[in-house]
Amino acid sequence: MAADLTVPPGLHRIIEDLALADHHAHGVSGHDLSRVEFEQLITESDRPVPEWMTQFDSQLGYAILRHCAPVLGLEPHASPEAYLARRAVLGADEVNRRLLTASGVGHYLIETGYRAGEILGPSAMAEVTGVPVEEVVRLEAVAEQVAATGVTAAGFAARFAEVLWERTRSARGLKTIVAYRHGLDFDPAPPEPAEVSEAAGRWLATGGARLDEPVLLRHLIWAGLERGLPLQFHIGYGDPDLDLRRADPLLLRGLIELAEPVGVPLMLLHCYPFHRHAGYLAHVYPHVYFDIGLAVHHTGARSDALVAECLEVAPFAKLLFSSDAWGPAELHHLGAVLWRQAMARVLGGFVADGEWSSEQAVRVVTMVGAGNARRVYGLGVAA
Amino acid sequence: MAADLTVPPGLHRIIEDLALADHHAHGVSGHDLSRVEFEQLITESDRPVPEWMTQFDSQLGYAILRHCAPVLGLEPHASPEAYLARRAVLGADEVNRRLLTASGVGHYLIETGYRAGEILGPSAMAEVTGVPVEEVVRLEAVAEQVAATGVTAAGFAARFAEVLWERTRSARGLKTIVAYRHGLDFDPAPPEPAEVSEAAGRWLATGGARLDEPVLLRHLIWAGLERGLPLQFHIGYGDPDLDLRRADPLLLRGLIELAEPVGVPLMLLHCYPFHRHAGYLAHVYPHVYFDIGLAVHHTGARSDALVAECLEVAPFAKLLFSSDAWGPAELHHLGAVLWRQAMARVLGGFVADGEWSSEQAVRVVTMVGAGNARRVYGLGVAA
Amino acid sequence: MAADLTVPPGLHRIIEDLALADHHAHGVSGHDLSRVEFEQLITESDRPVPEWMTQFDSQLGYAILRHCAPVLGLEPHASPEAYLARRAVLGADEVNRRLLTASGVGHYLIETGYRAGEILGPSAMAEVTGVPVEEVVRLEAVAEQVAATGVTAAGFAARFAEVLWERTRSARGLKTIVAYRHGLDFDPAPPEPAEVSEAAGRWLATGGARLDEPVLLRHLIWAGLERGLPLQFHIGYGDPDLDLRRADPLLLRGLIELAEPVGVPLMLLHCYPFHRHAGYLAHVYPHVYFDIGLAVHHTGARSDALVAECLEVAPFAKLLFSSDAWGPAELHHLGAVLWRQAMARVLGGFVADGEWSSEQAVRVVTMVGAGNARRVYGLGVAA
Repeated sequence: MAADLTVPPGLHRIIEDLALADHHAHGVSGHDLSRVEFEQLITESDRPVPEWMTQFDSQLGYAILRHCAPVLGLEPHASPEAYLARRAVLGADEVNRRLLTASGVGHYLIETGYRAGEILGPSAMAEVTGVPVEEVVRLEAVAEQVAATGVTAAGFAARFAEVLWERTRSARGLKTIVAYRHGLDFDPAPPEPAEVSEAAGRWLATGGARLDEPVLLRHLIWAGLERGLPLQFHIGYGDPDLDLRRADPLLLRGLIELAEPVGVPLMLLHCYPFHRHAGYLAHVYPHVYFDIGLAVHHTGARSDALVAECLEVAPFAKLLFSSDAWGPAELHHLGAVLWRQAMARVLGGFVADGEWSSEQAVRVVTMVGAGNARRVYGLGVAA
Repeated sequence: MAADLTVPPGLHRIIEDLALADHHAHGVSGHDLSRVEFEQLITESDRPVPEWMTQFDSQLGYAILRHCAPVLGLEPHASPEAYLARRAVLGADEVNRRLLTASGVGHYLIETGYRAGEILGPSAMAEVTGVPVEEVVRLEAVAEQVAATGVTAAGFAARFAEVLWERTRSARGLKTIVAYRHGLDFDPAPPEPAEVSEAAGRWLATGGARLDEPVLLRHLIWAGLERGLPLQFHIGYGDPDLDLRRADPLLLRGLIELAEPVGVPLMLLHCYPFHRHAGYLAHVYPHVYFDIGLAVHHTGARSDALVAECLEVAPFAKLLFSSDAWGPAELHHLGAVLWRQAMARVLGGFVADGEWSSEQAVRVVTMVGAGNARRVYGLGVAA
Repeated sequence: MAADLTVPPGLHRIIEDLALADHHAHGVSGHDLSRVEFEQLITESDRPVPEWMTQFDSQLGYAILRHCAPVLGLEPHASPEAYLARRAVLGADEVNRRLLTASGVGHYLIETGYRAGEILGPSAMAEVTGVPVEEVVRLEAVAEQVAATGVTAAGFAARFAEVLWERTRSARGLKTIVAYRHGLDFDPAPPEPAEVSEAAGRWLATGGARLDEPVLLRHLIWAGLERGLPLQFHIGYGDPDLDLRRADPLLLRGLIELAEPVGVPLMLLHCYPFHRHAGYLAHVYPHVYFDIGLAVHHTGARSDALVAECLEVAPFAKLLFSSDAWGPAELHHLGAVLWRQAMARVLGGFVADGEWSSEQAVRVVTMVGAGNARRVYGLGVAA
């Protein structure tokens, strides 16, 4: 993290040394990446990067060249060519080791439901990072696994519950991607068993691959709530399947209210550009939490502004840190480094303006960076 | 207000000395508050504050410890325990007197329709503040009073008009909370008399308590427009009953256009996080005004950013100051102090960048802080 | 542009000297303007400016007095009276010449479909600016011209295609105002020929004036896509006819996806306050571009903040500069001057913070200010 004259030095040091808990990340790519592959992995678009541009000409690209280049032994602001050449010379293992270690993350929760074959799993991540790595299980992936192994429509609900239990024996949380499989504007009530069988029949008849059947998606959420682990929701920006208008967290209000008596923490992930909406929900509902992960590394030099916008109406016990990184270890590294830098600048600014004490700044960065996740997920206590 | 090197000293002094007109506030609590009561009054959530957090860990909490502690004779950034202990020693009367006096508000419009029994009324507020206090009447409270005193469905509209007239003989404005009794997505046309009687029948049959009947809510708004006083709308953030998605001021466009010939000023209150939407409406429609009250004290060290976002497309004659404070006098104090500080920093920044003259900054802060309210509500002229 | 200590001097100079390509503007007023006319032209409202305010009390008003006054030979922060008196003494021709020349725009794309009789056309604009001026044709204006010259319902589609082709022989782009003739929430699929004839019949029966028939608006868009020029969409803020809620670019997702195979660049104009939504679409879809024109001059001292908000998730190859100025040459001037100043401050800030190199800042300002438009519209190559 660059020294910054406006940040009190003690605060700067404490933030730099803080062992973060990344409550929502994915594995890193285990193999070397060509330029085309690398550029495709530093965008959320699934379209090929057009030949008249390079994805390096983006906030994320410039942040990689600024913050990751030195970790690989180059000067800051290296060229994309120099960067990728150096990356190739070091090899994926060494690149991953350096970037993950330098991120200072002390605990990872890894969500394993997306293209798991292309990235490291939890145990390989634990090996390369040297810190505890635990799992978050994607509900839709479990359902697709149930369908793939053969199940009847009538037997789907029971089999799903059984497999969910097996798959989450040592998991720390669940995740749903209803935001981009349907939209957050779903009927919030739990479906009746007969509706679930019927919906399972419809879906299985289509082959039971990509689950986008609205009734089943709702059923998964309610089955997840019953399982009792903190439930993560993809919100806002972050997948090309998405209709962003239907990924506004305010659409979840009905479910949030119905689920309140269950007592399960609801974790709103990413949230850009609706992070103020998420902050409002976290203010009103004790079981709602949120983060601005993913957007931090994608907005690079602008991430300070986004982090600041998250520090408005939500109590500080309700905001978390995550990277949502998937693939290149640059994303894991930047998720942590840019977040530290943003917190140092924003909270440092509050202190410099006389609005907060240094002690308050340290307290908040510690809560948001690690303490809130440790409390919500029970980290450090056996799962 | 803390000295700030970027604010021209003359501007700083003028802003500090400006007698604000708070065009939408409520009374202060007249009795001592336990810690549990106090924490519950510094959140918009109606859920109990969970035992694993304190509501002091919020922007509002830190702003209280920063700006109110010195008014009670403590150092800035006192601990919550020290603050509440000092508050208890001084007693509610002295705390109220100190915080209200130090806020430098010169004129209050007090909305009296919410839990009026728990807070000071207009005359008690005038006594403790030593400045003029006038009333804004909540339409829904008048309707509920009409129902409570006995009325037939057929007689409702006439009786409501009569009681509204009595209750507002010396009032300065009206207020509607249709945003959280229904949502701003109501049919904007005035209902027919027969529809009103029918709706009154439905509502009175349920007991005539909390008014959330959409036809009656619309009728109240049109009856309010006919009464001819400036009409305040709750907008955006600020009540746990609220579906925030349905509190976007853009939903009011139909009513704004239908009401334009009536000539009544429409005052959009609070507006967070839709304050840019409100600014757009205030730009296009001569009879639309807005403020960012409530959000100022709830966002503490971030209130500068919100105030800046209000100074975009709306002409400066269309923006007002309010606190929307209810209960602890800390909220009244912070509403004023943080707004002054934000205006000093934001307008001072425009001056320091060479974009505005100091004279322009003084002109705008005077308009927004008092002049616009004086013009719209006719303050200083007999009601 | 004012010197600013935080902007590296080399960057400052390069930005000041950059010949901008304004990819969406209109002509300037060719005649002298009274105070009433001038005030009415510096607001997007079509309501008369109320007598209790002046439109000069706005960000745009203060920006005119700050940045345009010196170009007319006055001190910055002149009074409105002094400014308008000086403007009258110089006369419209000299005012236009000075303000347009000082803007440093090197290439204009002029959209000619709005009150063309009151402003200079492309060739007069080329004469007064001394730089290339090319045309963007408004689809709805072509349709209204077709109706005005007489056409049958059955013949409408063919005649429209023919006239569109004639009118765009040397044009660089097309424009649609479906946002304020209907809203962006239209059925994205191309209508069938029979539907088009039927809709043309309905519209022509009403006189064929202001085109707001949804089926025809859709047909125009699809006919425009077939014509193959970059297609500009009015988005967000900027016309009093507008229901801002229905001008959110996220509503265009269906059309964007259907149109993707056509290969025509879709240019989202203005976008305030939905510019982050536009940036998201430009991130995901290779054929989507956006700008923050119009809002830059209307927000004056706040334009830095808006420009910064555009530099988040969209790759830098997808953002453009425009002024959307219409009428007073002050708007053309400020569109350019405030944008340069904002880019200098924002990118200069990234450099000063160590996040970007100066070379990256120069690269991005050159892409956004001119290069992206040159590539998309093929500027410099015969149309």
